[in-house]
This record gives sequence, C-alpha cells and structure tokens, in this order.
Amino acid sequence: MARAKMLFSEKRIVKWGECDPAGVIYTPRVFSYAMDALETFFRQVLGTTWLEVHSKADMGMLMVRAEIDYISPLKPDKEIQVDIRIEQIGNSSVTYLSSGFDADGQQYFRVTMTNCFVFYRDFKPAPIPRHIRSPLLAYKSATSKA
Amino acid sequence: MARAKMLFSEKRIVKWGECDPAGVIYTPRVFSYAMDALETFFRQVLGTTWLEVHSKADMGMLMVRAEIDYISPLKPDKEIQVDIRIEQIGNSSVTYLSSGFDADGQQYFRVTMTNCFVFYRDFKPAPIPRHIRSPLLAYKSATSKA
Amino acid sequence: MARAKMLFSEKRIVKWGECDPAGVIYTPRVFSYAMDALETFFRQVLGTTWLEVHSKADMGMLMVRAEIDYISPLKPDKEIQVDIRIEQIGNSSVTYLSSGFDADGQQYFRVTMTNCFVFYRDFKPAPIPRHIRSPLLAYKSATSKA
Amino acid sequence: MARAKMLFSEKRIVKWGECDPAGVIYTPRVFSYAMDALETFFRQVLGTTWLEVHSKADMGMLMVRAEIDYISPLKPDKEIQVDIRIEQIGNSSVTYLSSGFDADGQQYFRVTMTNCFVFYRDFKPAPIPRHIRSPLLAYKSATSKA
Repeated sequence: MARAKMLFSEKRIVKWGECDPAGVIYTPRVFSYAMDALETFFRQVLGTTWLEVHSKADMGMLMVRAEIDYISPLKPDKEIQVDIRIEQIGNSSVTYLSSGFDADGQQYFRVTMTNCFVFYRDFKPAPIPRHIRSPLLAYKSATSKA
Repeated sequence: MARAKMLFSEKRIVKWGECDPAGVIYTPRVFSYAMDALETFFRQVLGTTWLEVHSKADMGMLMVRAEIDYISPLKPDKEIQVDIRIEQIGNSSVTYLSSGFDADGQQYFRVTMTNCFVFYRDFKPAPIPRHIRSPLLAYKSATSKA
Repeated sequence: MARAKMLFSEKRIVKWGECDPAGVIYTPRVFSYAMDALETFFRQVLGTTWLEVHSKADMGMLMVRAEIDYISPLKPDKEIQVDIRIEQIGNSSVTYLSSGFDADGQQYFRVTMTNCFVFYRDFKPAPIPRHIRSPLLAYKSATSKA
Repeated sequence: MARAKMLFSEKRIVKWGECDPAGVIYTPRVFSYAMDALETFFRQVLGTTWLEVHSKADMGMLMVRAEIDYISPLKPDKEIQVDIRIEQIGNSSVTYLSSGFDADGQQYFRVTMTNCFVFYRDFKPAPIPRHIRSPLLAYKSATSKA
C-alpha cells in the first residue's frame, strides 16, 4: 500500500509528432520516454538534477547498457504513466527499470537502463555521491516488491 | 575478404545538437543511429523502403526488443560508420546487430534490434514477404563470420 | 483579469538532452516547444486532437510559415510557461503566437505559426471546421488585449 | 555557371521517423534540416566546426531569429538537396538562407536564420572571427546572384 504510493511515475500523452506514418510511436522515442522519466525522478525524488551533478560534482552519468521491450504499440493521444524502479545499486552504477502503463493497467513498454557515475576529467567510474546514494537506497527499499 | 566488402555501413558525423551539455551524445540518439542505418539498409541492400512495405504490402515492422551497449562516448564531429549485420531470421521476425566504429577501429556502441513483420489491420505477426526474405538471407550469408 | 485567467499555457522544464554542448537549448527545439503547446491547446481548449482532425474529418493542418524570435537562451532545469495566443483567423488558416516566459516574467522566445486546414485527398485548403472555428473565435476574443 | 558550382548543398532523404501519422514531415524537423546543412557548411566550406568555435575561441553562435516558409510537404523517401546561401554579414551576425529542392527543381521549404556570434563568458555579441569572416565573404561573393 504505502509502497504503491511511493512509486514515482510521470504522466505523458503520446504526441502526434512522436508517431510515424504507420500511426504508432517511432520506436526510439520510447527510450526517450524512459530517460525523461529518469530525469524527472532525479529532480523530484533524489532532489538534484543532471546539471547539478555535472556542474557541482564535476561528474556525469554514462549510460552503459539499455534494454527495451516493446509490449504494445503506442498511438497519438494515449495517456500513460512512466514509472521508475531501481533494480540494482552498485558502487558506481545503478540499474533502473522504467515501465509505461495506461489507466487500465495495460503495459506498453519496459526499459532497463544501467548508468555509471564517472568523473568528467577522465570518464573513469566514480563512487555514487552520498547525497544521491542515500535517497536511491531509500527509494529502492520503499518500492521493492515484498 | 569478400565478406568485408559486402558489409553495409552508413557514414555519419556526430552532430553538435545531438550532444548534451556534458559534451557527449545524448544516449537515446545512439538508438536512432542504428535505426537510421537500418532504414538505409532496407533501401540500399533489400531494395525496398519502410514506406513501400507499409503502403504496398499493408504491413509494418514492429520493434519487439532492443538492446544497446555503450562502449565509448561519442563527441561532436566524430566520424563513424554504422553497420548492419543480421543475427537471426525467423518466420516473422528478424534480429539485426548494428555497431558504430571509427576509422581506427574503435567501437562506440552495439545495438541489437528485433523487428516483427505484422499486418496493419490487426497488428498480428505476418510472414516476412519473399522479396524481403530473399535478400535478407543472401546478406546474412554473405556477411556472416565463418 | 478574466482574460489573464483564460490564457492557455503549458508548463515545461528544459531537459538536459534538449541542450547542446554550449549548455543552452539547441535552437530548433524551441520550435518544438511551441508546437507541443499548440497540440495541448487543441486538446484542452478546442476540445479535439490532431489525430481526430485527421481521422474523423480527413483533414490536416499544414504549416505554412513560422517565425521564431530568440530573446534569451534557455538552460537545463529552467521552468517556463509556453502560452498560445491567436493572432488571426482566416477562412482556412490560423496564425498562432506562442511565447515562453519564466515565473519572473522573463521572456525567452516568441514563435508565430500559420497553419492552413487542408483536405488530405488533395492537400487543397479547406474551411476551418465549425467545431474548431467556434472555440478559436471564443478564445481569441477572451484573450485579446483590449 | 561557376557560381552554381560553388553553391553548397547537402543531400538527404526524408526519413520514415521524421514523418507524422499524416504521412508528411513533422514540421519542426524542417528547421533541423536547415540547421544540419548549416553545420555541414561550417565544416566543408568555412573549414571549422561549431565545437571548435566553442572550445577554441570560447565563443558561440546564438540563434537570434528564424523564418520558415513551407512550400510543399515532404514525404518519406523523398531525396532533396538542402543548400546554404548568405543573405547578410554584419559585425557579429550572419543571416543564412537555406532551401530544399528535389532533382526536378521543386522547392519544399525556405529557412532564413540569423545567428549572432557571442562570447560565452557573458553572451555579449562578439565580432565574427577573421578566419570565419573571410570564407563567409568569399562564399557570399561566389554564390550571389548577379
């Protein structure tokens, strides 16, 4: 119960220009949906932004790997919620799981993204900063399935 | 030897606007690089286009799954070749492998994409049309590693 | 007073991936901001969507001309409101004015867009459908400066 | 004669994913076509890149104003040439004109873009660097209509 309330998700409506002449979303844009949700998750749940990580900590997050499962094609005007879950937290890297659902519980996609924190001076892995690791752990714990 | 010559690839130069304030490519765009190469592959190697598949055969290709490995970050002005290989040809689906290399042989990414041919009337799987299956098989055979 | 309340605007936060290595928005995306606001304006104020116009009325809206003035560069994390005003309503065409402001009243851009309703069968101009013209006129009247 | 040969243009084929469910290019992408051509023009004609301007001269180019005329709608697979002409060279700013034509001479769009060179430290206008002004003047002279 409490867990469900904790789950971050971002509402969005599929845009006309995101869809192709077949009338369904052009598939690379699904990846952007997940990235957009992750960016908002940083702002709203972790209390920081990618710009702050970059400019204040001189660090960045490199994408290491992504996997996208397309479950059902999205069409213009469809309203979905794109959520973020945390699969794994390592020393430098975090694996996120982002899913898109409509109000009827129909799932449209599932995206797994592994990011690695790096120092910008050499792109070498950096430990996840404490002010990010702490809310990540709290969120993972609060949203994990029992 | 002959095989290397057969391998389709598309040259592109990383654009300024494809990169983010960290000075490296915004990661979802790597997926678009692979899709762009696949679209050109259809035109140049398979002798058809996605529009033709859609409008003449009333079929489409739904993306089923994609996997992206980020090997090295791309920066503006970097010239790369994005190639297309075929991993598997099923009854309705094809799995492509797209990699990005520079002239020194440095690899930047590897994208695996599985597409499924479908009828547009119901989005049900359709057998790969013969005029597409035939050059797919020929290309796979000509470019497979021994 | 009543007019200010009537003015449609859409909140958005400038995304990391919308900005370029100079740290400011890649300029073509400002045009997309205005188009996104216009799409939402159709849904929320005119009570229809571009998909409905296309699929039910077999009509479309062709962009005829756009003008973009860049007033101040946008950076990641900046929250702005993108509004829509109506400059002119013709027989087939409508000219919209979209501006982006932050909470301090700083303006970032101004986009003027002229769309023409057309029949899809021949791309010839079509009269604005009555169910769209009527709320357009009402909105123009309610939001015009005295 | 010699002038026609001098005119820079970039070939491109309209992509499936650049078009919307109406089967024509989603209009903001036309602006990107012009920007892409301008970026290539810098590399091939002016002998520098936007990254170099930014990182070596600590300068940037802010877009000040753009105007886009849509003359005919573009559809997937259409091959066009996107050219660059120079309308005006000021102290800090340059106005470019970019047009898209197919092989039959049919024009699809015309984009006018005014950029202003600025110092990044304060975004104040900067004189056009000499190594850029010189080839700009030469190109303008070589491609102007008599």
